[in-house]
Amino acid sequence: MKIALAQQNYHIGNFESNTRKIIEAIEKAKSDGADLVMFTELCICGYPPRDFLEFKDFISQCYSCIEEIKSHSFGIGVIVGAPAINPDAAGKDLFNAAWFLYEGKVLGTAYKTLLPNYDVFDEYRYFEPAYSWQVIEFKGKKIALTICEDIWNLGDNPLYRICPMDKLMNQAPDLMINISASPFDYDHDDDRKEVIRANTLKYNLPMFYCNAVGSQTEVVFDGGSLVIDANGHVVHEMKYFEEDYLVADLKVVEQNSKSGDKAVLRSLDKDMRVSKLNDLDKIIEYLVDERNIREIHKALILGIRDYFGKMGFTKAILGSSGGIDSAVTLVLACEALGKENVTAVLMPSQYSTGHSVSDAEQLSKNLGNPYHTVPIKPVYDSFLTSLQPIFKDLPFSLAEENIQSRTRGNLLMAIANKFNLILLNTSNKSELATGYGTLYGDMAGGLGVLGDVYKMQVYALARYLNRDSEVIPENILSKAPSAELRPDQKDSDSLPEYPILDKVLYQYIERRQSPNDIIALGIDEALVRRILKMVNTNEYKRNQFCPIIRVSNKAFGVGRRVPIVGKYLS
Amino acid sequence: MKIALAQQNYHIGNFESNTRKIIEAIEKAKSDGADLVMFTELCICGYPPRDFLEFKDFISQCYSCIEEIKSHSFGIGVIVGAPAINPDAAGKDLFNAAWFLYEGKVLGTAYKTLLPNYDVFDEYRYFEPAYSWQVIEFKGKKIALTICEDIWNLGDNPLYRICPMDKLMNQAPDLMINISASPFDYDHDDDRKEVIRANTLKYNLPMFYCNAVGSQTEVVFDGGSLVIDANGHVVHEMKYFEEDYLVADLKVVEQNSKSGDKAVLRSLDKDMRVSKLNDLDKIIEYLVDERNIREIHKALILGIRDYFGKMGFTKAILGSSGGIDSAVTLVLACEALGKENVTAVLMPSQYSTGHSVSDAEQLSKNLGNPYHTVPIKPVYDSFLTSLQPIFKDLPFSLAEENIQSRTRGNLLMAIANKFNLILLNTSNKSELATGYGTLYGDMAGGLGVLGDVYKMQVYALARYLNRDSEVIPENILSKAPSAELRPDQKDSDSLPEYPILDKVLYQYIERRQSPNDIIALGIDEALVRRILKMVNTNEYKRNQFCPIIRVSNKAFGVGRRVPIVGKYLS
Repeated sequence: MKIALAQQNYHIGNFESNTRKIIEAIEKAKSDGADLVMFTELCICGYPPRDFLEFKDFISQCYSCIEEIKSHSFGIGVIVGAPAINPDAAGKDLFNAAWFLYEGKVLGTAYKTLLPNYDVFDEYRYFEPAYSWQVIEFKGKKIALTICEDIWNLGDNPLYRICPMDKLMNQAPDLMINISASPFDYDHDDDRKEVIRANTLKYNLPMFYCNAVGSQTEVVFDGGSLVIDANGHVVHEMKYFEEDYLVADLKVVEQNSKSGDKAVLRSLDKDMRVSKLNDLDKIIEYLVDERNIREIHKALILGIRDYFGKMGFTKAILGSSGGIDSAVTLVLACEALGKENVTAVLMPSQYSTGHSVSDAEQLSKNLGNPYHTVPIKPVYDSFLTSLQPIFKDLPFSLAEENIQSRTRGNLLMAIANKFNLILLNTSNKSELATGYGTLYGDMAGGLGVLGDVYKMQVYALARYLNRDSEVIPENILSKAPSAELRPDQKDSDSLPEYPILDKVLYQYIERRQSPNDIIALGIDEALVRRILKMVNTNEYKRNQFCPIIRVSNKAFGVGRRVPIVGKYLS
Repeated sequence: MKIALAQQNYHIGNFESNTRKIIEAIEKAKSDGADLVMFTELCICGYPPRDFLEFKDFISQCYSCIEEIKSHSFGIGVIVGAPAINPDAAGKDLFNAAWFLYEGKVLGTAYKTLLPNYDVFDEYRYFEPAYSWQVIEFKGKKIALTICEDIWNLGDNPLYRICPMDKLMNQAPDLMINISASPFDYDHDDDRKEVIRANTLKYNLPMFYCNAVGSQTEVVFDGGSLVIDANGHVVHEMKYFEEDYLVADLKVVEQNSKSGDKAVLRSLDKDMRVSKLNDLDKIIEYLVDERNIREIHKALILGIRDYFGKMGFTKAILGSSGGIDSAVTLVLACEALGKENVTAVLMPSQYSTGHSVSDAEQLSKNLGNPYHTVPIKPVYDSFLTSLQPIFKDLPFSLAEENIQSRTRGNLLMAIANKFNLILLNTSNKSELATGYGTLYGDMAGGLGVLGDVYKMQVYALARYLNRDSEVIPENILSKAPSAELRPDQKDSDSLPEYPILDKVLYQYIERRQSPNDIIALGIDEALVRRILKMVNTNEYKRNQFCPIIRVSNKAFGVGRRVPIVGKYLS
């Protein structure tokens, strides 16, 4: 049996385009002599469809697409993902289903049993978990068909009390097929391969695993679909961060499974989604690890490109301050959208240092992207004049700093509105964590490019972007970070040094460590408490921030839901 | 047996203050001769604690508080809500538990079975559902102890496949106790009482039901705790929207249960959380129903007061435009915070009509709150001058309108930053739904007071606020709504008339109706499609909006999770 895997990039709710893509791949698989073609989880509507699933009209559009795709299933089996209506009155109204279509009919459906509901996932919000299981017989083979999380319940502290593959094994399947929408994070990729290998070894069956690719607002799906034999050896590995298509021969995979040794697994510890980094010195090393940075780079490019493409925009704008964050964002944007489509705006103030403008100019000259210079002093002064009757002789404070930042935000949005551009936000994760940013000022924008990238990682990314030639001027990399909102200001006036800050943030945000755990690693108690208090009292700011391209296992945004009016470590 | 019900307002994560409140009520109940005192769901940490539950340190603080409260349980039974650690390796790590403390020990725990995961709820994100059930024996009575949603699975289309009270009935309980954190919405209140009555009739047992009160960022809990006899008759009903305390005598309730007729229930249809309004003309009538408006008023006052109190702020600022939305917000803020604590800022432009300023002035004179006037022309002109080299001779467009709105946002934020005020946002739900607002401009602010109140309801609320005397000048109520960002602008230039718009929005947002369903009610197809497109293409704006005080069954914010990069009805 020949099985085609179609690793595609869908647009949520764009039934026409998703269905067209699926049908094209079916026709290609037919012409390649495939017996079966498999797609990914909820491919018909795109994943995650979120509350669109609560609209009956949305579900009925999914059903219409299934009808259309069914009419292309003559002579080939087709496995697609789409919601299925729960026929029982009791329980939620939908299942998250894999539909097996063949000869114009539904040969079978498999419902997802394990519904992820952590981090960015909300599946139990919409779906009833499966409570019965049935292999699907196709051309003499019994297929154990599961969906994404269904195969993730291994290890000694499983998240769920049930294991659907255990149930299916009673029916002696010949192979496993899993359709997924499993997102990228730089902690996660190896886990995924290990989990699939662990399944093949546990059940002594080969697995055909097809994963989605593409960015959906904040969540990046990285593809990397796999065919793994019953010994846990990778037979095929598909591309990462781009669409791919492959026809695999089950016979070859089965022969592989019969010969050769069992692969050795990396241990799947009970907490496999969180890396174990109790050695403080290794945290930064891990965060800036070259492989991680390389993957983050790919994820951010895909994240920018898909946000614009799927929103129907082509052009971006951003404020170019001469600092490292805007420099990295600008380089990424030029790569993702084309340099001619990215306008940089330099907005110096009386507190800007000379190199800020010259560094930013040099950067745009290196890149060849258009840029404007708009000094903010006239607008800033007019704000101060207008506010003078209210501010009177009160000393310069945060209010005046924020006016400058918001003047810049307003200028950028005005140009964006005038020329139909999307403003890219350049805030990094360390700033967002500590609230070191101005709402409606440097926190403005439609997409947060670096919002899940710690400052130390931004530096590493900059060095990576300069790997072939100096695109980002060296001076931007070497100078001390500053918001330049008052004379001689440095980030380090308000924030701890970034190597310390990022370690504490990582332990707290990604690893949910307690203050005592972090202090026990050897960081000053007062400093730890000060940092965690900054994180927890600034939730109200992050709550108004734009979507962030997620690259870590815990990004700000939909995956991290913290009370605003709370009093914890604050 | 005497049972005390303590209906209290907690602060999420403020263990010290929550525990102190609980202990005070225990001591009061002891001195009142109560045998048992009951509190509400997750009262120890506050509800909803959201992702704080993922921090082991947070859980261990809950356990410390239970220890402290236990030491006050000599001579009195105490039922409190707090997370409990799941002793099994399989499944999620926590239960949502009711802890029964007595004589310094844990007499029993009941775990929540039905975990709401719709709208604002995320409980399956954290908790394992209960899978065994045990009545708790106390002073010769068998108590069926459940938590909130556990008693909500009635009707012919239940959301869950299991009913914990059915399980507990096997052990012949004598009474039902339910601890809740059940939020207010104007669709919901009668349902709650009916559900409890339906339980008493189904199981032929009395119910002691204690609900939380207080606002937690966006979700308002309205109290209204109940004691209902086995015939479905209300024996005690506690206050709404404020703390309350009561000692009920089980003997009296049991005697009531023996005598008298069974109460007649309102039908609990399968879709009881959504009102049935297929008669188009009745929608507005329902939205502005006097009882609904009265309750919305109370919820908004509590929402404002608790947001400020729990955030540690006392003073607010808002832009007062002379329009109905800012007028209503200002009146509500003065009532919630005290008129001396609310600063209004009038920011006329060259496009403002004369009455805008005079109406806003008259309003603040009526209220007696401080106000400033800051014309925006100088700042607006300086923006235009700075942008002239880029904008050149392009015609006036949305960009210039937004500059005005953002100038106002910037002025308000500057004053807020200078004087430590929170900016109240005045946008209504009709505007937010259609994207008729400027990001970082009139969409700025820390709390959305009217963000869940449709324009027609804002008018009704204004009339209600004027019920005793004309606080809001009549001219504000009678003039045509306008953003005043260009000459002679009217909302109706861009938006359908509000009575039509609000009907369509309600059917789509609250009731998740399809375009065809709405068209079938008799509204022009092109208009319906235009409105739904406005709703769906403006998700990116609402995503950056501040928390909204939730008063409906479907507010924008945490309860409505829609893809930004989606293509559905858009």
